Amino acid sequence: MSQKSNETPALNSWIPFDQGGSGAREAIETFVQAVTSGPEFVDPSERIAVFDNDGTLWSEKPYYFQKPFIDWRRERQVPIQEEPLTSFHRDVLEWIGTATHPDGGLYTDLVFQPMLELLRYLRYHQFKTYIVSGGGMEFVRPWAEAVYGIPPEQVIGSSVGTAYRDDPPGIVRVPVRTPGSQEDAGKMEYQELLFIDDKYGKPVGISNHIGRQPIAAFGNSDGDKQMLEWTTSGTGRRFGLLIHHTDAAREWQYDKDSEQGRLTQGTLDEAAERGWTVVDMARDWSHVSPPLPSGEA
Amino acid sequence: MSQKSNETPALNSWIPFDQGGSGAREAIETFVQAVTSGPEFVDPSERIAVFDNDGTLWSEKPYYFQKPFIDWRRERQVPIQEEPLTSFHRDVLEWIGTATHPDGGLYTDLVFQPMLELLRYLRYHQFKTYIVSGGGMEFVRPWAEAVYGIPPEQVIGSSVGTAYRDDPPGIVRVPVRTPGSQEDAGKMEYQELLFIDDKYGKPVGISNHIGRQPIAAFGNSDGDKQMLEWTTSGTGRRFGLLIHHTDAAREWQYDKDSEQGRLTQGTLDEAAERGWTVVDMARDWSHVSPPLPSGEA
Repeated sequence: MSQKSNETPALNSWIPFDQGGSGAREAIETFVQAVTSGPEFVDPSERIAVFDNDGTLWSEKPYYFQKPFIDWRRERQVPIQEEPLTSFHRDVLEWIGTATHPDGGLYTDLVFQPMLELLRYLRYHQFKTYIVSGGGMEFVRPWAEAVYGIPPEQVIGSSVGTAYRDDPPGIVRVPVRTPGSQEDAGKMEYQELLFIDDKYGKPVGISNHIGRQPIAAFGNSDGDKQMLEWTTSGTGRRFGLLIHHTDAAREWQYDKDSEQGRLTQGTLDEAAERGWTVVDMARDWSHVSPPLPSGEA
Repeated sequence: MSQKSNETPALNSWIPFDQGGSGAREAIETFVQAVTSGPEFVDPSERIAVFDNDGTLWSEKPYYFQKPFIDWRRERQVPIQEEPLTSFHRDVLEWIGTATHPDGGLYTDLVFQPMLELLRYLRYHQFKTYIVSGGGMEFVRPWAEAVYGIPPEQVIGSSVGTAYRDDPPGIVRVPVRTPGSQEDAGKMEYQELLFIDDKYGKPVGISNHIGRQPIAAFGNSDGDKQMLEWTTSGTGRRFGLLIHHTDAAREWQYDKDSEQGRLTQGTLDEAAERGWTVVDMARDWSHVSPPLPSGEA
C-alpha cells in the first residue's frame, strides 16, 4: 500500500476557481461540507451518491467500451446459449485486463483521475457511492471494486434475463430470441434487455436497488437527466453534476451531435434552471487520466 | 438508547445443547467462529447472510401479513391507479403501526426474538444481513430498519412495476391490467408482479441485487430451498438453516400441509443431505416473541 492512501482524500486534479477553474471544485466541496456538519447535516445512511459510468467515470469514445467486449466474445465464437454468470464474469475480467483501446492502452487507462479522487473524497465523508450505468450491470461488476472501489452490490445497470439452475446450483444468463429480420429469424441473442437502466430507467433502478432517493448524482448526458432531476428535486441540500466533454486535446470533444453520451441544449438549460454544476473538462481538470494508468496496485 | 445495546450480542434465547436444545445454537456459533478467524476466514465484504421474512423473521399465520394490509387498503378504497411510491410507504407505516393481528397485538409483536438476536450477532461479526422476501419488497422496506435493523437497500423482495414520472419528479407504482374473468375485464390491479422473489426467484434476486453468493441463508419453507441450496453449494465454509414451526403452544405448528410456509419432507431430506441446520422451534427457543413487544425504542 502506498503512503498516499493514508492522506485525507482531496480533489487535487480539480482546478480551483482562483486558478482558472469554473467553480466546480468549490461547488462539490461546499455541498459536502454542508451535508456533513451544520444545519443541513444529512445522516450518513442517507448520503447516497450515484454515478453514471460511460462518459462520467471513464471515456465512451469512439464507442461504448462494452461494444469491443461483445465483438471480442463474438470473435472467440462464444456460443449464444445459457451460460453460467461466472463464465461471463471470467470473460469480462480477461478482456478488461488485456484488450486495448484503438488509441492504445487498456480501457481502464481511460478512467478519469478527477472522478477517482471524487469517489474517494465522498466515501471519506461517509457517502455510499453507487454506479448507475446504462451499460450492462454484469459487465461492470467484476472490475468495479478494483478500479473504482465500488463493490458489486453498489453497481446498478442494464440487465439481460438470468435464472437459477439447480444442477449444478448457479445463476445463468438466459439468451432470448431476437425478433429481427428474416435472415436473423430464430437467432438467439442477449440483446433483449430485461431492464434498461437509462433515462427514465435510472431512477427506477435506483429505487429498486437502493430504496432511497440519492442526495448527489453525477452524469454527462441526456441519459442521466432523469436521475439528476429526481435526485435534486428531493427536500434538503442536493447536488447534481454534469460533465461536459470539452477537451479534444486530452480526451474527446462532443455533446449534442454525439451518438455516445449525447448532451443536448435542453439538458444544459435544465442544468442551469436546477442549479446543477457543469464541469468544463478542458478548464476544470488538471489531469484527465490517472498518473499510473494501469492502477497503483 | 438502552444499556443493553453496548453488550456483545449473544444468542440468549437459543437453548444450548446441554440444556436440551437441538444443537442449532452451537451450529451457528461454530460457523461464525470458523469464518471470522483461522483457516476458513472469510473477508467481511463476503460475509453476506440472507433471510427469508415470512415464517423466518416473523409469523405467517393465519395468513401472510401482507394480506390484511391489502384488505385494509381495499376497505379504505385506495384507488387502483398510478400512485407515488411514497404514498404507498406512508400507508404501510400507518398500517404496521396500528393494525392488530386476529390474536391481538401489533403484527410486529410477532417477530421472533431469537432471530433479532441472530441478526445482531451476525452484524456484530461483520456480516451484512439481507432480507430476501417472497412478499413485496416495498411492503417490508419502510419498517425493516426500525424492526430488524436492516436498511432499505438490504431488502430484496417481490415487486410490481414502478416507473419514473418527471412532473412532479418521483417514482410511482404502476397498476397493470389483470387478464382475469369476463366481469373483471379491464379492472386494474397490482397483482401482476414484475418479479417474484420466491423459490427459483430468490437466488436470481440475490444475484441481481448483491452480485455475490451469500455464505449463510436462513429460511423456513420450500420457497427458500433454492436460496439455501445455492448459498451452501459455494466453495468454503457455508451455512444453511431452516426453521421448523413445531410450537403450537407459543406460535403455530405446521409444515407439509400448510398453505403458508409449506415445508415438505423433500426439503427436510435435502437439509439432512446438505447439512443444513433445522431449528425445532419448541425445543430450541426459550422465547419466541420479543420481551418488549412493541420495540425497545
